[in-house]
Amino acid sequence: MEYVIAIDIGGTQMRAAVYAHNSQTPVQSKRIPSHVTGEKVFDRLAGLVESVWPKDGTVAAIGVSAPGPLDPRTGVVMTTPNIKEWRDYPLTGNLTGQFHAPAFLGNDANLAGLAEWRFGAGRGHHNVLYLTVSTGVGGGVIIEDRLLQGYHGLAAELGHVTIDASPDAPVCGCGFRGHVEAFSSGTGIEHYVAGELAAGRASSLTGTPSAREIAGAANAGDELARAAYARAGMYLGVGVANYLHIFDPSIIILGGGVSMSGALLFEPFEASLRERVFHPHYLDGLVIAKAELGDDGGLLGALALARLNVESQMLNQGEHNATDEVTRA
Amino acid sequence: MEYVIAIDIGGTQMRAAVYAHNSQTPVQSKRIPSHVTGEKVFDRLAGLVESVWPKDGTVAAIGVSAPGPLDPRTGVVMTTPNIKEWRDYPLTGNLTGQFHAPAFLGNDANLAGLAEWRFGAGRGHHNVLYLTVSTGVGGGVIIEDRLLQGYHGLAAELGHVTIDASPDAPVCGCGFRGHVEAFSSGTGIEHYVAGELAAGRASSLTGTPSAREIAGAANAGDELARAAYARAGMYLGVGVANYLHIFDPSIIILGGGVSMSGALLFEPFEASLRERVFHPHYLDGLVIAKAELGDDGGLLGALALARLNVESQMLNQGEHNATDEVTRA
Repeated sequence: MEYVIAIDIGGTQMRAAVYAHNSQTPVQSKRIPSHVTGEKVFDRLAGLVESVWPKDGTVAAIGVSAPGPLDPRTGVVMTTPNIKEWRDYPLTGNLTGQFHAPAFLGNDANLAGLAEWRFGAGRGHHNVLYLTVSTGVGGGVIIEDRLLQGYHGLAAELGHVTIDASPDAPVCGCGFRGHVEAFSSGTGIEHYVAGELAAGRASSLTGTPSAREIAGAANAGDELARAAYARAGMYLGVGVANYLHIFDPSIIILGGGVSMSGALLFEPFEASLRERVFHPHYLDGLVIAKAELGDDGGLLGALALARLNVESQMLNQGEHNATDEVTRA
Repeated sequence: MEYVIAIDIGGTQMRAAVYAHNSQTPVQSKRIPSHVTGEKVFDRLAGLVESVWPKDGTVAAIGVSAPGPLDPRTGVVMTTPNIKEWRDYPLTGNLTGQFHAPAFLGNDANLAGLAEWRFGAGRGHHNVLYLTVSTGVGGGVIIEDRLLQGYHGLAAELGHVTIDASPDAPVCGCGFRGHVEAFSSGTGIEHYVAGELAAGRASSLTGTPSAREIAGAANAGDELARAAYARAGMYLGVGVANYLHIFDPSIIILGGGVSMSGALLFEPFEASLRERVFHPHYLDGLVIAKAELGDDGGLLGALALARLNVESQMLNQGEHNATDEVTRA
């Protein structure tokens, strides 16, 4: 039996799962905290992989999803939030060294998009725009059935696109101003509400409420809370209109916690998007969908990445064999 | 002898050229005005193609560059500035009907990017961002050696990306506000200067000067004129930082009349770009270059498009032959 191992690394938890050929249901999976005092994160990861390693076969590849920035071509994690010991860290090199299987690394949002295209809401589409809206905003883009990665592997950072170049635009998680993430992420919503409350605006909310609390207040009719989601949705529409003009996809898939707040965000988002698309042809046949894979997006994206690499290797060998055959014939 | 015919359609002029195998120097080429009272544009185009048609061989394909929006998959021009009789016009269908050769259509900026990648400043690069800055702003993007076109063929409209979502942002040629084109195109520069002059700002310029006149005044030390180019360059840097985060190319190629104004635009552009890139790794090894093909970009792009289609057809046939060989062996 030949297996693929998928790994999803987060700042608080790490998951690993083993998949048999052609199945998206793991034969084995495990989740552990990323950090334990006195232990190195890689040692914990290696132990996790060891604990799920299949006893009855070989592992064709290991796929790894991690928060970036990282370089998918070299398998090096440059920096990753909440894992400070990983700086320019050769993650796939170390995994391959330890487990003697080829390992492939991808940015978590990119891979969640890859997973939605291969296993989720984007099945059958060739040009997919996936956007995750949660604490931050991330993207994954499929162009003619290929994952957009770019020269350094840093493409599709769709949260970090300036839509308000004015010097007083809100600050993004990355430190720059006016990015989509600064307006439309959970953090952006929280900052906006905290600022309005501090300025004395009336609301049932007090202090520095979370995006979830703000959604609750909005659903209970709080005007500031509703305005906060309307604002986030409006700016998300500005950003996504840009992505339509840039990528012209056939489907937009929205994932992440904030996108689950329903009509609060979706109605202003869709209105803003339709208002800003500069030619109606972009909308012909365009599907706007919610992500289907939820929390499993990273793991299934790592699975898809590993499988694509195994397949492309087999294809290349197949082509070489075919050439040999032709030559011999 | 097998030839390719390339056509470049503009609002004022149309060009056609005939190329022999593997050459970028036309064996024959001609340019005529697009409009003559009492004649249909397509009839003029057909006459032009007829007049360059090679007498001593066959035409493998016709490539056509035209201003969009258009659908490269169907060869239909939806609308095109300055040719009002073409609305949802089946241009390649009509060309093939008349000349019995396969015809392929592409957006002029997309194809100028394709030409720079295949024949110009982008040779050897696999991820290319081409931007033309003239009356408007257009884009052409190569991702892993393939032209970005999108689901409807409307991708890479890089001039129509909102970088200032505020309701008082300047109006773009397309009617929407705050697009890169509204700030950084020749028209954007002209609108800005005309507005400042109308508001009484001191300058050697008067009335509604052209982008070229403004560049002249800037080079002669006029402060408003210099500020106008500095502003255009600054916003262009905002836009291009966005494109880096989105595409992560290894080369940025700037073409078009406004980009030829030299340091006036380039210095503020580069400073703004470097200031706004949110991770320094995007700049590692990044080349910033001027377009090499100038006025021939559209024609050579049409040539490249036609050749790529001929090659991919030959490749498909070759693969079928190889498969046949294997099967027979």
